[in-house]
Formats: sequence, C-alpha cells, structure tokens
Amino acid sequence: MPNPTAAILIIGDEILSGRTRDSNMHYLAGELTKNGITLAEARVVSDDADAIIGAVNALRAAYDNVFTSGGIGPTHDDITAEAVAAAFNTPIGIRQDAYDLLAAHYARSGREFNDARQRMARIPDGATLIDNPVSIAPGFTIGNVHVMAGVPSVFQAMVASVLPTLTGGAPMLSQSWRIDRGEGEIAGPLSTLATEFPDLSIGSYPFQENGAYGSNIVIRGTDAGQIDAAMSKLAHLFPA
Amino acid sequence: MPNPTAAILIIGDEILSGRTRDSNMHYLAGELTKNGITLAEARVVSDDADAIIGAVNALRAAYDNVFTSGGIGPTHDDITAEAVAAAFNTPIGIRQDAYDLLAAHYARSGREFNDARQRMARIPDGATLIDNPVSIAPGFTIGNVHVMAGVPSVFQAMVASVLPTLTGGAPMLSQSWRIDRGEGEIAGPLSTLATEFPDLSIGSYPFQENGAYGSNIVIRGTDAGQIDAAMSKLAHLFPA
Repeated sequence: MPNPTAAILIIGDEILSGRTRDSNMHYLAGELTKNGITLAEARVVSDDADAIIGAVNALRAAYDNVFTSGGIGPTHDDITAEAVAAAFNTPIGIRQDAYDLLAAHYARSGREFNDARQRMARIPDGATLIDNPVSIAPGFTIGNVHVMAGVPSVFQAMVASVLPTLTGGAPMLSQSWRIDRGEGEIAGPLSTLATEFPDLSIGSYPFQENGAYGSNIVIRGTDAGQIDAAMSKLAHLFPA
Repeated sequence: MPNPTAAILIIGDEILSGRTRDSNMHYLAGELTKNGITLAEARVVSDDADAIIGAVNALRAAYDNVFTSGGIGPTHDDITAEAVAAAFNTPIGIRQDAYDLLAAHYARSGREFNDARQRMARIPDGATLIDNPVSIAPGFTIGNVHVMAGVPSVFQAMVASVLPTLTGGAPMLSQSWRIDRGEGEIAGPLSTLATEFPDLSIGSYPFQENGAYGSNIVIRGTDAGQIDAAMSKLAHLFPA
C-alpha cells in the first residue's frame, strides 16, 4: 500500500515579498519523511481570503493530510481561521475551552486579555484543538486540515502534537552516493538502474565544487534490501 | 493599475523529501519585488509529469508570469521540458540553436556530447531560449512560462536574463518599525491604521527575544508619501 500523502499550505505576504524566508516547509518535510507520510505538494499564498479558501479546498481534496502555517495570531492580517471555516462552509466563533486556556494564560502573566487576544479563541465548529505549549493560543484540526502557527518554534511544537495522531506508513529510507563526474556522463547507466528498480526513486542532484562537476545520487524507498541492492550496483558502476 | 503578477513552480522530489532546502523561491521573491512584479503564489511539486502539467496550466491561467525551477538537466528524472510541452499541447524536439550551443561547449571542454547531454537541447516548438552563462544548457520561455534550472547559481543567472524582458510595475517600497510589545497589545490600533490606509499592506510579524514578545510592523506599497504618513502615525502610536 502506498504511504499516506500530505500537503503544506504556507500563508503569508512576508514569504512572497521576500522579506522572510520560510523554514516550516523544510521542517515538516523532514518530519513527515521520518513518519512514512509523503509530502506531495507545497503551496505559498498571500494573506487573502479567496486564495486561502481555494488552496485549502484543492489540497484537502487531493491529499490525505493538509498542514497550514501562519495567520492565526491576534492582528488584522490574521485571517486563516476564518478562511478555513469558509472553505468548510462551517460557522466560526469563540470556543469556550480555547478561551479558558487563553484567559488563564493572560491572568498568570498579568497581561490584558483584550479583544484582539480573544480573537485567537475563534475556532470553526467541529474542530479539535492542537496543543501549543510555547505560547498557548491553540491551532486546530478540522477534517483532514491541521491549522498551525507560522512562528517556527510554535509550528514545530504543533507538528509534534499532531503527528502521533496520524496514520503513518513505512518510513522512507534513503542512501546517497557521491560521484565526481558531471550528470551528463552518468545519465545513461543511471536511467537503466532506475528502470531495474521501479519501486525506488533514484534522484540525481548536480553540484559544482572548485570548478569541477559532480552529482549526488539519492536512492529512496521503503525496502532496505532493494536500496542496498541498487546501491551496490551504483557503486560498481561508479566506484568512489 | 495594479502591478503584474507572477507565480513560481518548484519541481523536485528533493525539496519535498526534506533533503534539500529550496532557495530559489526566496531569491525570486526579492528580485520580483524590486522590479514591481507581485509574487502571488508559489508551489512545489514532485518530479511527476501529471503534477507538473496540472500546476503549469493552473498557474499560467491565473498569473501574468510563471517561473519554473528544476528538472531540465540530462538525467532520467529531468522531465520538466516534456511536461511543459504537454501542458501547452505542443511538440518538443531537439532544437538546432540549443544543440549548437551545447555541441560547441562540450567540444571546447573536451567532454563527450552524448545522448544524455543532447536531451538538454530538447525545447518545445515556439519557445525562445533563456541564456545560461553558467553552464550553457539553456532554459526557455513559452507563452508566459519561463522554464529555468534548479541549481541556484544557474537559476539566478536565468532570472537576470528574463527580468529585463518583462513589463514591471511600480517598485514595491517598504518600511518597518519594531515594537517591543506583543501583537495582542497593538492589534487594535494597528487594525485602525490599516483601515485608514487601504492602499498599503500593513503586516505584523511577531518575535520572541530573551523571553519578551515583540512585533515587527512592515508597511508596504508603491506610494512613498503614503508610507511616510502611515509610518509617522505608527511611530506616534508606539514610540520607540
């Protein structure tokens, strides 16, 4: 059975303007790979309701799991929760358990639990909360969509909360082999090798180092024996 | 008139598996912003023909320009040129001017111009070549889609070749203001400010530093006078 699939939807003008470099996609990719879930697509859209709604609906129909990052804070440009509720055609309002968590948090810290902060308790009907041990304001899961914060430390904590609840597959294994020759010299035998091992993914990643060309070959799959066999053939074709 | 729009489509299993961290999206975002073109969406898909074709067709219909990154080398997993030709329902074959460039390059360097390397001269009918001063193998433009290499140094050189051919808009300007208070305390006045300046984008980007909360406020737009006016009000609301 093929591994379950996932997509990530990153929401934020600051990524698309080049001001901020996203790190959540790369983090999630690594965590999913370890857990046998295939990250099949990533998208970045701006803080625009129609763009978010369109992407959420396209991705949740196409993949087993969708993770969103960003837009769930207290400010006017945080519109993800509303947009996800609209994508599911579901009402959204202040949720008592989220409100209580936040009220207790602000009472402890002596800061005002004002209207803006209360907005972070707005959760679509029928969602379950995602724990946020870093800054309390929860994420939520609705259907197969997991709505999480954009701040990397909070995103990572939420991924740790969600992953154990998901059905994983066989962990994706990989081995790599460095060849100090340009891709063009190795492409023929490599293509033959890929045909011999149809269940493995064999990728070639070229590099330049001190003016010379080389390629890193990465063999991925879920069957360690097949990967070993393909690696032996590769090492025989292109000795180190 | 609003600025022209663009999307980037990054093609590569190595990004989605977490092995490699993409840098081309962030680079292109900065270059487009300088040139008054709004990067409105980014997608990452795997080395899969259907995924590439679907994304190319969705993005070229939705935006003024589409940039692709990756999958145009000589190995079996390089299928971008074929997939883009299929998206345009256009034949693809060895193109003489691209072939001649590559043949001369390999003759100069004394390396064999073999079948795998000749694949890099396969260009969809009707496309124009994009110059590659780094490693010669050209990219191409077909319709509003610019097909470029994934290796960052080559991608960047190709962006430099393409950008002068595009119609830009007014450069997007921005100023930022650091506020050493949590987003929840400034969200109300910030929302009012955003309503007063509907032509500006006012973003709030929270951070934590030494255990204290703060926010960077970024005001973006094409009218320097309006940005100055909004910054003055912001500085008055939240003095440094």
